[in-house]
Amino acid sequence: MAVYTPVSAEALDAFLVDYDLEDVRSLKGIAEGIENTNYLLETARGRFILTLYEKRVKAADLPYFMALLHHLSLKGVPVATPRARRDGTTISTLCGKPAAILTFLDGVSVTRPSLAQAHEAGRALAAMHQAAADFPLRRANDLWLPGLARLAAGTAARASEVAPGLGHLIADELEAQAAHDRRGLAAGPIHADLFPDNVLFLGDRLTGLIDFYFAGDGLFAYDLAIMLNAWAFHDGALDPVIAGAIIGGYERTRALTAAERAAMPMLARMAALRFLLTRLHDWLHPAPDALVRPKNPRDYMAILAWHRSTPPPAAYGLA
Amino acid sequence: MAVYTPVSAEALDAFLVDYDLEDVRSLKGIAEGIENTNYLLETARGRFILTLYEKRVKAADLPYFMALLHHLSLKGVPVATPRARRDGTTISTLCGKPAAILTFLDGVSVTRPSLAQAHEAGRALAAMHQAAADFPLRRANDLWLPGLARLAAGTAARASEVAPGLGHLIADELEAQAAHDRRGLAAGPIHADLFPDNVLFLGDRLTGLIDFYFAGDGLFAYDLAIMLNAWAFHDGALDPVIAGAIIGGYERTRALTAAERAAMPMLARMAALRFLLTRLHDWLHPAPDALVRPKNPRDYMAILAWHRSTPPPAAYGLA
Repeated sequence: MAVYTPVSAEALDAFLVDYDLEDVRSLKGIAEGIENTNYLLETARGRFILTLYEKRVKAADLPYFMALLHHLSLKGVPVATPRARRDGTTISTLCGKPAAILTFLDGVSVTRPSLAQAHEAGRALAAMHQAAADFPLRRANDLWLPGLARLAAGTAARASEVAPGLGHLIADELEAQAAHDRRGLAAGPIHADLFPDNVLFLGDRLTGLIDFYFAGDGLFAYDLAIMLNAWAFHDGALDPVIAGAIIGGYERTRALTAAERAAMPMLARMAALRFLLTRLHDWLHPAPDALVRPKNPRDYMAILAWHRSTPPPAAYGLA
Repeated sequence: MAVYTPVSAEALDAFLVDYDLEDVRSLKGIAEGIENTNYLLETARGRFILTLYEKRVKAADLPYFMALLHHLSLKGVPVATPRARRDGTTISTLCGKPAAILTFLDGVSVTRPSLAQAHEAGRALAAMHQAAADFPLRRANDLWLPGLARLAAGTAARASEVAPGLGHLIADELEAQAAHDRRGLAAGPIHADLFPDNVLFLGDRLTGLIDFYFAGDGLFAYDLAIMLNAWAFHDGALDPVIAGAIIGGYERTRALTAAERAAMPMLARMAALRFLLTRLHDWLHPAPDALVRPKNPRDYMAILAWHRSTPPPAAYGLA
């Protein structure tokens, strides 16, 4: 969300020698991405996003992300494509940080998506799942049960500073999630963070899915549950019309199984728990050098509480 | 330097109705400018910078800045031009903040300018001074003697936290500056903040002077002195070769008078004092909602101390 690493014109020129992109016209630091430094790079050969990976993204994970984006874009999913260097590799070093150049995608993210946009986003998520199904690399999702249990342990002592009873709620939910039987649900590479700010539109046309730096192995229906919480939760409840538009869009491309539909409320609880815990952690332990304000964990506490009140399937837009 | 005010696609669309720019292709928050929110806005009609003016820039000053940029661009100085709305005005409101759209300038700013770039920047500053000489509006420079005395008073009690004796140095310098006779030096609208990051280049070709939000009435030679400190001070001293390149470039367009040359060391001290005081103030009183780290005031303390050691004119590149 900010420029952590300034890149001089001189350093950029030296860096671009290895690409086919010497002719720089403009370089602007942009306020995007999770703790990465992003630049909009304009050259005679077009526009790109230049990303320097700061500590939150592990260098060892970059080959997975680059290969996944390459795979998805070959299959027509609208994602940024890594630009290869002259030697064919896509990951390099700039100002001492791992760095890559990705194609620029037109479009803007919307804060309150229309029904048509929600529908398109659901459809694109399903297309991504289908296209990724034969992707050969694997990456564990750090923010699944073991990782969440670690976050819970690290925040338990101070969770009540944020809200009374929050530590207990988290412990109880973790226990319920550990007991939930998810066998048989379809799995593969998932985006795992498809908030509205990670989807670009031109009008109602979806032009890009971005920010794959939480992507990893997971349940497809869990990816959809993350979307429902992030896109459709307004004024204290899931909006079943928006949720229905997302699910309807998703099922235009990939039909949910009966087991996935039945699991959706528990997966939505899991998704709420995941964002509640990471936000709680960042809230209680703000990085001293962070240039972004931590998000208040209470929003996701409310989402979790709503799901735990066991609303009927219709409240999820599951007709 | 950051996005203080998020602009939704919906708010942007409503805003652009008053311009001839409806067809948005992209909107990226960029990390540029002094406590303003800046977006790179791409439309079917080209690229622009959309700026929302946060508290540091006073809304009452915007007509001056917009008129000055318009005036300079009409005279061929490479500055961003305000985009007029359908009703002919250039200042509007977006998300509750004053806002304007300026043309996008190609180019990148350099951290260690080459001699050719320093020469071109000096030349552009002189061209700006000449082009602005008949600009009819007036704006007092807040960061001249009375304003600096206020900053000194507000920082005196804690200046020694930054460096022993700093409060005394500042008081002494203020006294010397108050006694300095500057009568007869040429004056007019000045940029007042022409650091290397406010000058864009494509190679050695200067493509833009940006960030005029400190512009106001002042001494032309003082504007040049600000540049000398910001561009040519390295490793504890002014680099006379870089300083000479800037002054040489300046004089290609506008010759300095003998009085201006004689005043240069005192004006460079004044310029050092100005940035020392604003950095000291921001260092001691960081804005609680600032998304940028304050700059260390000690760099400008060293610059001031160097000037006070009365180096000879040749050390200033004044042949």
